[in-house]
Amino acid sequence: MTDVVTNMRLKLPIACFILQIILIILFGVLVEYDHDTDARLWHSKNHSDYENDFYYRYPSFQDVHVMIFIGFGFLMTFLQRYGFSSVGFNFLIAAFSLQWATLMQGFFHGMHGGKIHIGVLSMINADFCTGSVLISFGAVLGKTSPFQLLVMAIFEVTLFSVNEFVLVTALGARDAGGSMTIHTFGAYFGLMVTRVLYRPNLNKSKHRNSSVYHSDLFAMIGTIYLWMFWPSFNSAITAQGDDQHRTAMNTYYSLAACTLSTYGMSALTAHDGKLDMVHIQNAALAGGVAAGTAGEMMLTPYGSMIVGFLAGIISVLGFKYLSPVLENKLKIQDTCGVHNLHGMPGVLGAIVGAVTAAVATTDVYGGGMKDVFPDVESGAITASYQGLVQAISLAVTLGMALLGGLIVGFILKLPVFGAPSDSICYEDNVYWEVPGEEDHEEQLTAVHAAKAEKLN
Amino acid sequence: MTDVVTNMRLKLPIACFILQIILIILFGVLVEYDHDTDARLWHSKNHSDYENDFYYRYPSFQDVHVMIFIGFGFLMTFLQRYGFSSVGFNFLIAAFSLQWATLMQGFFHGMHGGKIHIGVLSMINADFCTGSVLISFGAVLGKTSPFQLLVMAIFEVTLFSVNEFVLVTALGARDAGGSMTIHTFGAYFGLMVTRVLYRPNLNKSKHRNSSVYHSDLFAMIGTIYLWMFWPSFNSAITAQGDDQHRTAMNTYYSLAACTLSTYGMSALTAHDGKLDMVHIQNAALAGGVAAGTAGEMMLTPYGSMIVGFLAGIISVLGFKYLSPVLENKLKIQDTCGVHNLHGMPGVLGAIVGAVTAAVATTDVYGGGMKDVFPDVESGAITASYQGLVQAISLAVTLGMALLGGLIVGFILKLPVFGAPSDSICYEDNVYWEVPGEEDHEEQLTAVHAAKAEKLN
Amino acid sequence: MTDVVTNMRLKLPIACFILQIILIILFGVLVEYDHDTDARLWHSKNHSDYENDFYYRYPSFQDVHVMIFIGFGFLMTFLQRYGFSSVGFNFLIAAFSLQWATLMQGFFHGMHGGKIHIGVLSMINADFCTGSVLISFGAVLGKTSPFQLLVMAIFEVTLFSVNEFVLVTALGARDAGGSMTIHTFGAYFGLMVTRVLYRPNLNKSKHRNSSVYHSDLFAMIGTIYLWMFWPSFNSAITAQGDDQHRTAMNTYYSLAACTLSTYGMSALTAHDGKLDMVHIQNAALAGGVAAGTAGEMMLTPYGSMIVGFLAGIISVLGFKYLSPVLENKLKIQDTCGVHNLHGMPGVLGAIVGAVTAAVATTDVYGGGMKDVFPDVESGAITASYQGLVQAISLAVTLGMALLGGLIVGFILKLPVFGAPSDSICYEDNVYWEVPGEEDHEEQLTAVHAAKAEKLN
Repeated sequence: MTDVVTNMRLKLPIACFILQIILIILFGVLVEYDHDTDARLWHSKNHSDYENDFYYRYPSFQDVHVMIFIGFGFLMTFLQRYGFSSVGFNFLIAAFSLQWATLMQGFFHGMHGGKIHIGVLSMINADFCTGSVLISFGAVLGKTSPFQLLVMAIFEVTLFSVNEFVLVTALGARDAGGSMTIHTFGAYFGLMVTRVLYRPNLNKSKHRNSSVYHSDLFAMIGTIYLWMFWPSFNSAITAQGDDQHRTAMNTYYSLAACTLSTYGMSALTAHDGKLDMVHIQNAALAGGVAAGTAGEMMLTPYGSMIVGFLAGIISVLGFKYLSPVLENKLKIQDTCGVHNLHGMPGVLGAIVGAVTAAVATTDVYGGGMKDVFPDVESGAITASYQGLVQAISLAVTLGMALLGGLIVGFILKLPVFGAPSDSICYEDNVYWEVPGEEDHEEQLTAVHAAKAEKLN
Repeated sequence: MTDVVTNMRLKLPIACFILQIILIILFGVLVEYDHDTDARLWHSKNHSDYENDFYYRYPSFQDVHVMIFIGFGFLMTFLQRYGFSSVGFNFLIAAFSLQWATLMQGFFHGMHGGKIHIGVLSMINADFCTGSVLISFGAVLGKTSPFQLLVMAIFEVTLFSVNEFVLVTALGARDAGGSMTIHTFGAYFGLMVTRVLYRPNLNKSKHRNSSVYHSDLFAMIGTIYLWMFWPSFNSAITAQGDDQHRTAMNTYYSLAACTLSTYGMSALTAHDGKLDMVHIQNAALAGGVAAGTAGEMMLTPYGSMIVGFLAGIISVLGFKYLSPVLENKLKIQDTCGVHNLHGMPGVLGAIVGAVTAAVATTDVYGGGMKDVFPDVESGAITASYQGLVQAISLAVTLGMALLGGLIVGFILKLPVFGAPSDSICYEDNVYWEVPGEEDHEEQLTAVHAAKAEKLN
Repeated sequence: MTDVVTNMRLKLPIACFILQIILIILFGVLVEYDHDTDARLWHSKNHSDYENDFYYRYPSFQDVHVMIFIGFGFLMTFLQRYGFSSVGFNFLIAAFSLQWATLMQGFFHGMHGGKIHIGVLSMINADFCTGSVLISFGAVLGKTSPFQLLVMAIFEVTLFSVNEFVLVTALGARDAGGSMTIHTFGAYFGLMVTRVLYRPNLNKSKHRNSSVYHSDLFAMIGTIYLWMFWPSFNSAITAQGDDQHRTAMNTYYSLAACTLSTYGMSALTAHDGKLDMVHIQNAALAGGVAAGTAGEMMLTPYGSMIVGFLAGIISVLGFKYLSPVLENKLKIQDTCGVHNLHGMPGVLGAIVGAVTAAVATTDVYGGGMKDVFPDVESGAITASYQGLVQAISLAVTLGMALLGGLIVGFILKLPVFGAPSDSICYEDNVYWEVPGEEDHEEQLTAVHAAKAEKLN
C-alpha cells in the first residue's frame, strides 16, 4: 500500500516543523504568564494561595483535557481498521490546535499591552477550540490525510476565534459550554468540508466503514469519558461559586435523561428491537451538547432533564432517518454522524439558551444575575433582548461555519495534501506502519495444517 | 437469534420513556437547587467563592463518577461475548438509578419545606446508591434483560434509601464509604435475587461464561480505575478538612496492602502457581470495600493495612473455595463473584468499623470527635454504644438486603420482562446488534482457501 | 508451559506475605498521621477547612496515581502476549513500592520525634518513587519474574530515596517533576540492570517482542493518560499558588510542542514515510520528562515549547538510531526504550533546569524567588551556584543509578527468583493462567471443517 500520493515522508515533517517553529516564535514575541502564573506578579499582591484560579479550575481543565484526548480520540476508534489514525490524528491535531488557539483566542480576547496573558482559563479555552476542530474531524474521518487535517485546523481555529469574538465580545452572548461556539460551529463547518470533499466512489471502501466487536468496546471508552466529564466541560469557564456548581449539576441531569431516551429510541428504531451501538456511543451524549448554553442559567433540574430527553430523541432519529438522506441526497458523507451528536443538539442547545435567557428575572437570579447576564444586571439590555442576542448568535454561527467550511473544503481539495484515494479510505495502513495480525493466524494455520494433513 | 421473548422493541422504549417522564414530573414538583447551586440563595449571603461545597467535593465526585461508569462498566467486560451489555446496561441502569436515587434519598434525608434540595453532595450520594445497584447487577450479569434490570433498580434504589435512612438517620451509624449501606447491601440483595432466579440449566451457556485474552484486558481497565479512585469514594462525603484527607489516605494504604495479599494468595491457590486474573481483577479491590466504614476514623495507617491485607486473603479464598459451594450447594449463581468482592469484605468492613468506633477516645480524636462521632462528642452516647450501633446496623442491612432481594427476585421472575433462555445467556447478540467478526475471518478464509486448493 | 523454575506457587506468596507483614510492623512502629490528617492535631488549631493541604494537592495526586497505574501499566501492554503481565506486574510492584517508599522517604526526609508523618504530600512522593521503579521495569519488561521485580523494587526504592535525599536535602537541588530523581535515575538504573541480565539468546523470543493491532491501541490508552496528566505530575509537589499553576502550564506547552516534533520525526525516519506507533507511544511524552526540573521555574511558555520540541526529536532519533546500537554493541536490551523516553529526555531536563536556574534573577521572580530558589532568595548562594548544584545533581544521579543498577542486576541474576528462560520471554502464559483464545478458533474451525468436508 505504498503510494507516492499519500506518502508523508516530507509533507508531514515539513508541516509539523514549520508550524511548531512559527508557534514558538509567536509565543516568544506575544505570550506572557498571567497574574496567577507569574512568580513576580502573583507575589506582588497580598492574597492567599487558595485564591489562585488554579484551584478553581484545574480539576475541570483536566476533565476537559481527558474529553479532548481520550474522549474524542477513542470515540472515533469504532472503525475496524482506523484505530491508530483515530487516536493518533486526534492527538496530533489537538496538540497543534491548542497552541494555535492560545494565540488566536488571546488575540481576539484582548491583548494586554501587546501581550497575550495565559493561565488555566486560557488553557481551557484552547482545549475548547480544539474540541471544535475534533468535531469537524469526525465528519471527515477516514477520508483525509494528517496534512489535510493540520491545514483544516489552522483555518478552523482561526475562524472559531473570530466567531467566538463576535458572539461573546461583540454581541454579548452567553455560551459557557459552547452549544453554539463549539458544537454547532464544529459540526456545520465539518459537514460543509465533507460536502465539498464529496467522494462519489467511496463505496469502494465501504466494507471498512463499520465496526467490529473490539473496536466498538474501545469506542465506548471514549463515549463514557465524554459522558462523565461533560459536567466539567460545561462548567469549566463559568463564573466561580454557584455558577460552576449549578452548571455541572444541570449537565449531569441532562445527560442522565438523555441516556434513557437514547436507549428507548434505539430499541424502538433499530432492527428487531435490538440496541444499536452507534446510537449508544453518540446520542447518549447529546444531552451534554444541548445543555451547553443554558447549563449555567437557572434552567432548573427538571428543565435540564427535558432538554436532555429531547436531545437523545432527535439524535437517534437523526442517525436513523436523517443521515441516509444527508448522504444520498445532499452528498454529505458524515463518518461519525456529527450532525446528530453535535449539529442538531447544538442548535437545540442554542434555542434553549435563548429562551431561558429571555425569561430570566431578578426574582430568580437575585445577586447572581451579574454572573450570568451582566448586561441585563447592569440595565444595559432587557432579558428578552438577551434572548434575541442568543438567537442572532446562532444564526451568525451557522453562517460562519457553513461559509468557512465551504472555503476550507475547496482549499483541502487541492491535490497536494496527500489525501487517500477512494479505495483506501478508513485504513490505517495508508499512513501508519501496522503490525502483522495477531499470531492467531499462525496458530490457526498450524491447527488447520494439522487438520488438512489428517484429512488427506 | 431473533426471539419474540427477548425482543425489546416495545418493552424497553416503554420502560425508558415512562420512567423518564415520571422522573421529570417528580423533579419538577419536588426538586430545587440547594443553597450552593442557586444563584439567588448563594449571592444572598456574604461568602467567598472558595467556600462553595463544589470546590471541596467536585473532584471527588468525578472520581466516584468514573468508578460507577468506567470502573463497574469495564470490570464486567471480562466475559468474552458480553462486553456491549456489561458496559451498556451498566450505563443505562446507572443513568436511571442516579435520578431515582436523588428523589428517594432526598425524601428520606429530609425535605426542606416539601422540597428536595440538591447539590454536589446529593450527586455523590446518588452515585453511591447507583453503585449498590451495579453490585447487584454483577451477581445477575449475563442472565437478565435490560428491562429486568431497570425493574430491579427501581426497587433496589428505594430499599437502599430506606436502609440508609434507618442506619444513618434513625440509628446514628457512621458509614461514609458504605461498607454496609453500599457493599453489604448491594451484594446480599443481588445474591438473593440471583438465588431466586436460579437457572438449573445454565450450563448450556457455560462456554460463554468465561473470559478471553482481550476481554480480560478491558476488565483490567475497570479494576484499576476502581482501585485508584477508591480513596476518593470513601472520602467523598466525610466532613471537610482532615476527615476527607485521612479517609483517602487510609483507603490508599488498605488497597496497597490488599494488592500484595491478593497476589500472594492467587499464586498460592491457583493452578501451577500461576496468577489468576479473576483474583487480581476483584480481590485486589476488597481493601477499599473493607475500609468503607472505618476509613474516616482514626484507624491509623497500619490498621488500614491490616484490614486490607485480610480483605485480600478472604476475597481470594472466597473465589477459590466458597463460590463453588454457593453455586453447587446453595444454588447461587454469582457471575462476578460479588460475594467475594463486596459481600464478605463489606461485612469485614462493618465489623472493623464497629470495633474502631467502640474504642474511640477524646485523647485520640480531640476536637475532631464531633466530625466523626457527633453523638459521642455531644455526650448522648458512649463510644462503646456507637460500636453497638454499628453492629446492629450490619444486622439490619443484611436483613433488609436478603428480604428485599427475595421479594424482588420473585417479581423479576414474572415472565414478562424478556429474560434470555438458558442457552443464550452471556451473549450480547440477544439484545444488541453485534457487528460481524473482524475481517480476520475473511483473511483467514482466503488463506485457507488457497491452502486447500494447493492441497488438492 | 508448566515449569519448576518459573513456578511461583511458593516464591510469590512468601515474598508478598513477608514483605507486607514487615511493612505493617514498620508502619505500626514508625508512621503517624500528619497535622492535616490527624483529627486531634487538625482541630487543635484554628483554621479553615479549605486550608487543608488535601484541597491543594489531592486532585493532582489522583492524576499522578492514574499515570502510575493506568499510564505506565497500559503503556507496556503493547507487547502482543504480555498484557496481563504488563498491567498486572505494574500493579503489584507499584502497590508494594508506594508503601516501602513511604517509609524510606519518610526516613530520609526527616523524622518528627522518631516518627514519620504522612499526608497527601507523602502520598504523591511515594507515587513518584514508584514511578521510578516502573521506568526500570520498562527496561526489563518481559524478561523477569514478579519475584525478581519485587526484589528490584526493594533496592531501587531505597536507593532512590538516598539519591533524592542527597539531591534535594543535602545539595539543595530543585527537581519538582523529577527529571533527575525520577526519570534519569529510573532509566539508567534499569538500563544497567538489563545490561547485567543480558540474554544472548533472546532472539528465541523475538517473535513475541512486538505488537499487534489491538495491543497497540491498549498501549495508546497508557500513552494518552501519561500525556494528559503530566502537567499534574510536574506540578504536584511544587509550592502552592502560582508555582503549581505555572508548572502545569509549562508542561502543557512542552508536551504539545513535543507531539508535533515527534510526528514530524516519525514520518521522516520511519519506513515509507509512515508513522511508527512506537514513536508516538513514547517520544510524544518526552516533553513532560524534559520539563520536569525547569517546569516550576520561569521557563516561559515559548521556552517550554523549545524544550519539548527538542525532546521529541532526540527521543525519536534514539528509537531509530541509538536503540539498535545499545542492543547490538552495548548488549543493553531495553524492551520499552526507556533510554529514549526517560533517559535522554531526563538528562536534557536536568541540563535545562541547571541553565534556567543559573540565569534566575529577582527581576523575573520577585517575591516568588523564595518558593523556587529559597537558597538564592536567602542570599546563601547565587543563582549561578544554584545552576552548578543542579549540574552536580545530574552527575550524582547518573553515578548512583549506574552503580545501583550494576549491583542490583547481579543480585537479580541469582538463580532463585524464577526468571523465565530465553525462549519463553514476553509470554504471559509463564506466570498467568491465560484463557483460551477467542472462540474465533472454534468458529473458524467449524467453518473450515465444513469447507474441508465439501472439498472431499
